[in-house]
Amino acid sequence: MELDLAQLRALDATVRGGTLEAAARALHVTPSAISQRLRALEIAAGRILLVRTKPVQVTGSGQAVLRLARQVDLLTADVARELGDDTAPGAVPTLPIAVNADSMATWVLPALAPLAGEVCVDLHREDQEHTSALLRTGTVMAAVTSDADPVPGCTSTRLGGMRYRPKATPDVARRWFPDGPTPEALARAPVVVFDRKDDLQHRWLHARAGTGVVPPQHLVPASADYVSAVALGFGWGMVPDLQARDVGVELVELDPDGAVDVPLYWQQWRLRSATLDRVREAVLAAAARELDRA
Amino acid sequence: MELDLAQLRALDATVRGGTLEAAARALHVTPSAISQRLRALEIAAGRILLVRTKPVQVTGSGQAVLRLARQVDLLTADVARELGDDTAPGAVPTLPIAVNADSMATWVLPALAPLAGEVCVDLHREDQEHTSALLRTGTVMAAVTSDADPVPGCTSTRLGGMRYRPKATPDVARRWFPDGPTPEALARAPVVVFDRKDDLQHRWLHARAGTGVVPPQHLVPASADYVSAVALGFGWGMVPDLQARDVGVELVELDPDGAVDVPLYWQQWRLRSATLDRVREAVLAAAARELDRA
Repeated sequence: MELDLAQLRALDATVRGGTLEAAARALHVTPSAISQRLRALEIAAGRILLVRTKPVQVTGSGQAVLRLARQVDLLTADVARELGDDTAPGAVPTLPIAVNADSMATWVLPALAPLAGEVCVDLHREDQEHTSALLRTGTVMAAVTSDADPVPGCTSTRLGGMRYRPKATPDVARRWFPDGPTPEALARAPVVVFDRKDDLQHRWLHARAGTGVVPPQHLVPASADYVSAVALGFGWGMVPDLQARDVGVELVELDPDGAVDVPLYWQQWRLRSATLDRVREAVLAAAARELDRA
Repeated sequence: MELDLAQLRALDATVRGGTLEAAARALHVTPSAISQRLRALEIAAGRILLVRTKPVQVTGSGQAVLRLARQVDLLTADVARELGDDTAPGAVPTLPIAVNADSMATWVLPALAPLAGEVCVDLHREDQEHTSALLRTGTVMAAVTSDADPVPGCTSTRLGGMRYRPKATPDVARRWFPDGPTPEALARAPVVVFDRKDDLQHRWLHARAGTGVVPPQHLVPASADYVSAVALGFGWGMVPDLQARDVGVELVELDPDGAVDVPLYWQQWRLRSATLDRVREAVLAAAARELDRA
């Protein structure tokens, strides 16, 4: 297959923008030029790469070519930067990264902020889809994830653990747990849960009170808002140590033996890219400072 | 169609929990009892209501029956409460509500907190799916949304407007906008965008600098984290007045004429329920305090 950079870039821009018109605006060409490049790329690949819905949908074959397009784009931007060519399109490369919600709300943004001038981050909440699928399809080039198993073509590096503890406001603790987290109290006390896939609360709950226990539960599916809900007294919840210090109230720890460590990993494509290397170093350095090294 | 409360509750619990086993745990019966109730409900309805995948999937007919199940459950819980029966299953009713991300991160949780003991909230981020679809299918009973058009069977009440202003840290403003937000500066300055559907930044950008302008952009798809990214200096962004006061730094307003009001509406099912009424009152009262009444 003959590589044509303009065609690959048209594919990438169309998927990013969702439409041929958005891609045309991003690349400063006409929609018909985008359309021609996409057709030429499909002829070269011998396959349909995009379904022309609004927004466009990437086919299975399209995902492989898209992944290639983004790798080539990153490498091209690296070279342009080395050569001091800041005006080339893509001189500020975009790095799509999946990040689990609690990491995004705490240590990852400050880690990436110093690089904000040289790389654009395109963050994906890990909980929206499965991170391994995002890596495999090339939607993201790297991920901060609790999934240790490297996706084929990726490396996986342990970052450390995020520590969660069962906590509540003093009011909630007094009202619902006057005798501590007994099975009876846990069966009645409301619990705040992040979303349906979040089993952190239920692991501790079931360990203390048995699997038959179904307390009233509030679902608050945003990381900072989840901790706000615990701080506002909706119920108890598993709160990361990194977030507990940022809420206005002093939260009470319900069980000194109830801490849970969630290990986190950095997964990234095997790709020698100066930009990706710098982001990796920033993430690893921040993880070493902020996460538990159990 | 004969109504059977236990069957309807089995349907609701199965959809909430995702599996028959989870429904069985929630209702304190065996999975086989759940399975029998679902089958009986499907025979009564004359239609397949659930596809038995993991998690289960609701069919089109299933959605209508699910909506009925949740309405009946809420009304039953209302009556149980009126009769002083706190031990009945469902005595703490669960109210599924869709909330747009910025409202969830600011004024909605404090508004609902006083009701947390009498109603469990099951919040859905509006940006995850279309709110009207969530209302229509019965996944949520109410919504805080920028969508004014009432879904069939729902009422729509204007809550007020959320005001956004183009802002940046003093450092970002100095570095990228030494002469203010000129078209040239806006073409080069990095912008922070919430997600691909978020066009707030681009509306102001295109009004000031033309539609051909494509600055470097960072995507940060969580509301509190979005404002953090602006406060950390990733770039400029449209920041709600309600959130600007919570960040550690004093943000600079880039354009006194750049404010955008996003109107918000309360949509809910037409249903006389004391619980739903109380939640509605709490939301409307908080909106009157917190939102702009333009």
